[in-house]
Amino acid sequence: MRAARLIPILDWGRRYDRAAFGSDLLAAVIVTIMLVPQSLAYAMLAGLPPEAGIYASIVPILLYAVFGTSRSLAVGPVAVVSLLTASAVGEVAAQGTAGYAVAALTLAGLSGTFLVLLGLLRLGFVANFLSHPVIAGFITASGILIAASQLKHLLGIDAHGHTLIEIVASLLSHLSQTNWITLAIGSAATAFLFWVRRGMKPALRRIGLPPLAADVAAKAGPVAAVVATTLLVWGLSLEERGVAIVGAVPQGLPPLTLPSFAPDLIAQLALPAVLISIIGFVESVSVAQTLAAKKRQRIDPDQELIGLGAANIGAAFTGGYPVTGGFARSVVNHDAGAETPAAGAYTALGLAVAALALTPLIFYLPTATLAATIVVAVLSLVDLSILRRTWDYSRADFAAVAATILLTLGLGVEAGVASGVILSILLHLWKTSLPHVAEVGRVPGTEHFRNVLRHEVETVPHLVTLRVDESLYFANARFLEDLVQARVTEGSGITDIVLMMSAVNEIDFSALESLEAINARLRDMGVRLHFSEVKGPVMDRLERSHLLADLTGRVFLSQHDAWAALTEQT
Amino acid sequence: MRAARLIPILDWGRRYDRAAFGSDLLAAVIVTIMLVPQSLAYAMLAGLPPEAGIYASIVPILLYAVFGTSRSLAVGPVAVVSLLTASAVGEVAAQGTAGYAVAALTLAGLSGTFLVLLGLLRLGFVANFLSHPVIAGFITASGILIAASQLKHLLGIDAHGHTLIEIVASLLSHLSQTNWITLAIGSAATAFLFWVRRGMKPALRRIGLPPLAADVAAKAGPVAAVVATTLLVWGLSLEERGVAIVGAVPQGLPPLTLPSFAPDLIAQLALPAVLISIIGFVESVSVAQTLAAKKRQRIDPDQELIGLGAANIGAAFTGGYPVTGGFARSVVNHDAGAETPAAGAYTALGLAVAALALTPLIFYLPTATLAATIVVAVLSLVDLSILRRTWDYSRADFAAVAATILLTLGLGVEAGVASGVILSILLHLWKTSLPHVAEVGRVPGTEHFRNVLRHEVETVPHLVTLRVDESLYFANARFLEDLVQARVTEGSGITDIVLMMSAVNEIDFSALESLEAINARLRDMGVRLHFSEVKGPVMDRLERSHLLADLTGRVFLSQHDAWAALTEQT
Repeated sequence: MRAARLIPILDWGRRYDRAAFGSDLLAAVIVTIMLVPQSLAYAMLAGLPPEAGIYASIVPILLYAVFGTSRSLAVGPVAVVSLLTASAVGEVAAQGTAGYAVAALTLAGLSGTFLVLLGLLRLGFVANFLSHPVIAGFITASGILIAASQLKHLLGIDAHGHTLIEIVASLLSHLSQTNWITLAIGSAATAFLFWVRRGMKPALRRIGLPPLAADVAAKAGPVAAVVATTLLVWGLSLEERGVAIVGAVPQGLPPLTLPSFAPDLIAQLALPAVLISIIGFVESVSVAQTLAAKKRQRIDPDQELIGLGAANIGAAFTGGYPVTGGFARSVVNHDAGAETPAAGAYTALGLAVAALALTPLIFYLPTATLAATIVVAVLSLVDLSILRRTWDYSRADFAAVAATILLTLGLGVEAGVASGVILSILLHLWKTSLPHVAEVGRVPGTEHFRNVLRHEVETVPHLVTLRVDESLYFANARFLEDLVQARVTEGSGITDIVLMMSAVNEIDFSALESLEAINARLRDMGVRLHFSEVKGPVMDRLERSHLLADLTGRVFLSQHDAWAALTEQT
Repeated sequence: MRAARLIPILDWGRRYDRAAFGSDLLAAVIVTIMLVPQSLAYAMLAGLPPEAGIYASIVPILLYAVFGTSRSLAVGPVAVVSLLTASAVGEVAAQGTAGYAVAALTLAGLSGTFLVLLGLLRLGFVANFLSHPVIAGFITASGILIAASQLKHLLGIDAHGHTLIEIVASLLSHLSQTNWITLAIGSAATAFLFWVRRGMKPALRRIGLPPLAADVAAKAGPVAAVVATTLLVWGLSLEERGVAIVGAVPQGLPPLTLPSFAPDLIAQLALPAVLISIIGFVESVSVAQTLAAKKRQRIDPDQELIGLGAANIGAAFTGGYPVTGGFARSVVNHDAGAETPAAGAYTALGLAVAALALTPLIFYLPTATLAATIVVAVLSLVDLSILRRTWDYSRADFAAVAATILLTLGLGVEAGVASGVILSILLHLWKTSLPHVAEVGRVPGTEHFRNVLRHEVETVPHLVTLRVDESLYFANARFLEDLVQARVTEGSGITDIVLMMSAVNEIDFSALESLEAINARLRDMGVRLHFSEVKGPVMDRLERSHLLADLTGRVFLSQHDAWAALTEQT
């Protein structure tokens, strides 16, 4: 049981049959066709040679098939992680050097180790510190940055930069060097790929193709663009007219490689590796969970960490770079009928064949076509509607989205996501640091107690009851101190304060000390402090402190008991 | 009214009478006697010439008297802030240079500006991000560090270091150079001051002194130590035997000084200034609030920010360094009968007289006596019982205390407090990221619903009700997704899930998206999602989203309604 949980293949592998094999194989063919151009393109985005993208899709897929829990997730290079890789590795080595490739391997190794550790320690919850607004803002801004960074390939010029301003400024300063033939190829490929994505399937259906064939044909659209533009460049010798091409790509299976173990490099890459791991994991789990629900299956997030970690460690030793579960390819895999992770293994096989046989054929492939593939893919990530949706729902969440988008575009991906995380934590602390506290009175003739501002209720001048609508912890403990002191100094003749704790799920040590301070200060003012409706677990904990012994008043099971006891005395 | 709130002196100044004047004057005399040696000693701790401590107690006290709201708080140099100043300024300039003094002024100016800004923007709640365990751990570790750092003066040797290990190693390596006369003076002064603090007042009472006289005499103990050791050094020319003395101190009122406006220096000191401001503010407010409660008064924390900020800006322009409200001196001030902030003004006057007249008299004062004053004062800050108290109450809070103490001792004050803050925020997020969720059933024959694991309750196989005992936000949203999916895939024949929201005080945008995801995934599984007992403000917000429109089930006012409606259908 334990082994099957850590190595899920032991579970589903035992029951694998011919029907599942057929479904998996078909899904694998479709995903392979989709992945070849995408892998080349994302490697380029990461600043690596094109074969790195293919390598990163072979062994990692196999390892995920062994250790992962999702039946549909397709692992490999994805746009956002490729951008993060380029940003992190670009800090420590120059593109095109051997050091750059080694740094990318090291990044994958670190990320994989971190993910496996999180999984073994069952610490998957750290991914929760990335709030949805931060993720949505970050993905949208990354999509814009990636699209902007690819314009140089579409224009055939040189440009650099990690922020939108840098990229745009660099593009503008080189604009006069535009290669018009490259621009024509790039624009045509982009337009064609947009049409493939939006209009091709309906068009094919209209001319009578059956749905499955139309689907496969639409998936093959990028391959068609690759073939057509490669033939064009080759036939017209456009590479002699300044059209940038992919060039020689080594032919063969993924090589055995070693990440670096130099402590300096590891120290520099550690933080980006954590970031890449968490962003990759969050995206991947959310896709996997959605697809699992469609089949009433479930995934185990802690085991997913191990699956993705193994995939990344695999990438580090076979010439790849950081990988994760991709949204588009996983949906394609699922829709094409993949039943088990074996579909991934067959995809890996298909890509291995591509690496062995097809690489000489892409010598003349223009980089503009790959850029077009990237631009079309990432523009679907850009979703500015998140701004309006958060604005409508909550200004604090809107602030987190807006800050993440602006800072990612303006300062780069790492600063952007870091600021977003910090901001959303601060906003959460700020919101809970001002808890709702209502003064309550009795609804006449009942045992119900309601807000004095909203309802016609009975109150007694010497008795003030405050209902605290939030757990008490360090960020709001002092607020309660101020509030109680203000209420007592304002009123006159107050002898008893009751804190009604029905909505308090926790009292941490800071809040305990604040309650002790409130108790001591009220004693100095000649006012008794009582509690009512304290929850069981909270009471258990309070009994381990001095508060209850020092309390000037009593603890009442219900607010009604408190009311009855404290109004009687007068 | 508005003016009186921003400048509280306009309020109490109007009603000032002869009785208040008498009380304030007596308190001022006692506090002045206490402050003279303390101010000299803390300046030495901050690495500044002794007069800086006196200067830092004159204009800042006057400004606090105008802008502060506490009637008893005594503002000036304090031990922990002096240590933080030494640590921050030591990073940018060498002790004894003009640059060091200017950096200390700049630190006070930055801290003052930051505090005033926080006050004007009414952002005092940021101080709440320092949890009590972090503050307690930090103060304790600082006390140990300060005491260790003063041993070099008691031994008459040279030693340096910002961490306990550095300090101890440096002391040990210089131990052979111990000046035995200095050690004798230092030990005698330390022993005497401990006796003054613990045993002197009872002893004086026993020999028949009235309480007030005994009290004043005890307060004058440090002055007696200063006078006795100064006379000793002067009479026996011990300075020629290697006993370090204070030396020439300029005679006169505080000079007009200018902090630096160099952007580089400001950038380096900004973070320490924020830290000093917040730690100083938290300590100060807690003292002020305790003392105010004793007189059934209240202080306004946002106005306190302005009062302390004005005091620090004053320090920056009159040769001082960062100041805050001191615990010991405020209690003395309060106990001696101070009625209004005017007591502070008279103290300032007394210190001005000291600066004008007394400084030549302390030429022969041995630094060992000042070190003894510091050691005795700070050892009262050391309270290791916090470790046991937090251990008993909550392991998470214990972890925060222990980490803060160890990291402050091991890495220095800034790293220590920063790690403590980060750790306590992460622990809070971790605790709330695993909310308590109970599956509930109906107590037979009632409308009450209780945990199925703890009570004998009715349940129906097709209906699962989960009560969520925590507000839903980004850190726990995904946990709920996992939990619901696990529960539905485990059970069979489930058609309806009810989330009972009675303890949910907030749903942020991340949690909204998680609920949407749960709804969509349950729809794919053929299960309906319902809500019950949603609080008013939470419902108002949900109505601004798409969730309710897309919900596969219904929203029930009470859990009883949900039970009645959903069990009837079968």
